[in-house]
Amino acid sequence: LTQPPQRADARRNREQILGVARKAFADPEASVSMAEVARRAGVGMATLYRNFPDRRELLEALYAYEVDAVCEAAATVEGETPGAMLRAWLHRFVAFFSSKHRVVAELLAQSGPSDPVFRSSRARVLTAGKPLLAAAQQAREIRDDLTLEQILELVVAVAKIQGGAEYVAPILQAALDGLRPVSDADQV
Amino acid sequence: LTQPPQRADARRNREQILGVARKAFADPEASVSMAEVARRAGVGMATLYRNFPDRRELLEALYAYEVDAVCEAAATVEGETPGAMLRAWLHRFVAFFSSKHRVVAELLAQSGPSDPVFRSSRARVLTAGKPLLAAAQQAREIRDDLTLEQILELVVAVAKIQGGAEYVAPILQAALDGLRPVSDADQV
Repeated sequence: LTQPPQRADARRNREQILGVARKAFADPEASVSMAEVARRAGVGMATLYRNFPDRRELLEALYAYEVDAVCEAAATVEGETPGAMLRAWLHRFVAFFSSKHRVVAELLAQSGPSDPVFRSSRARVLTAGKPLLAAAQQAREIRDDLTLEQILELVVAVAKIQGGAEYVAPILQAALDGLRPVSDADQV
Repeated sequence: LTQPPQRADARRNREQILGVARKAFADPEASVSMAEVARRAGVGMATLYRNFPDRRELLEALYAYEVDAVCEAAATVEGETPGAMLRAWLHRFVAFFSSKHRVVAELLAQSGPSDPVFRSSRARVLTAGKPLLAAAQQAREIRDDLTLEQILELVVAVAKIQGGAEYVAPILQAALDGLRPVSDADQV
């Protein structure tokens, strides 16, 4: 029996695997078998399976990894005003939503919408984004009759629209413009 | 053999059947068998099948009937300005979209998205709505970087959001508010 790998090696392997799997899943043309993930990451199957005993664990880890990035972005996103920061974060969220859809489709097929990774992620994203929304509403840059949950539902609904980026981007822009507060003067 | 019914009778039967089927399908709890439709319409099964030889023909007729109503509404909708007229029609369109979803789900299951009734309806709705949008854009009440197709995709995307009317209505309002032209001053 060989010794277990050192911690730093193990972590590097895990990150290497997640990184290549993430890229592979982002390419709608690529087939992403476990063997292909191992090959791309330059690790053996034993190492792959030690890190992710089955495909579902790899998918869940990938999903959680993307969610981490979105949550971190809420704290680091840049913008000149609270409203600009919220909008920048919403664009980041849309990019996350669009890139993860193959992973989600497979997770849904394997374990259904009750997979705990979905529920916990939703809560984490809402927690991360709420201070941004509160600041933007406080600054009167964003309407105050929508919760973050409703705003995310709106951008997800738009992100699901079929069509190229040129077709969908102006629709998203309109939806984001609709988050501006409505003054009495232009109430519709 | 009995004589075929008079034309007026036949038309009345057909409308009676469509009317009750429409109500039945709008009730998400109701089971809507052909026998139930005949019973509610007060006609015999022979009359029902003379009008709609199979269930799919009934569904297609129902769908076309709703589309007719939406198209007619484009010509008759009321509003103080062209923008208000367009918004009133978009609300009517959302109501249409929400009410028809059981019929659509069944049609999709039976004949798939290539059912000609979908393609022709889409074209008819776009043709009916375009003058409303053109007038509202001309009056500078509606942004000019979206086509009617894109606007309908937006409202359909929002109408698909799960949740009660209280949850979805403010999201729809934000989306419709986003159709206002964006002045340079509040460009985001």
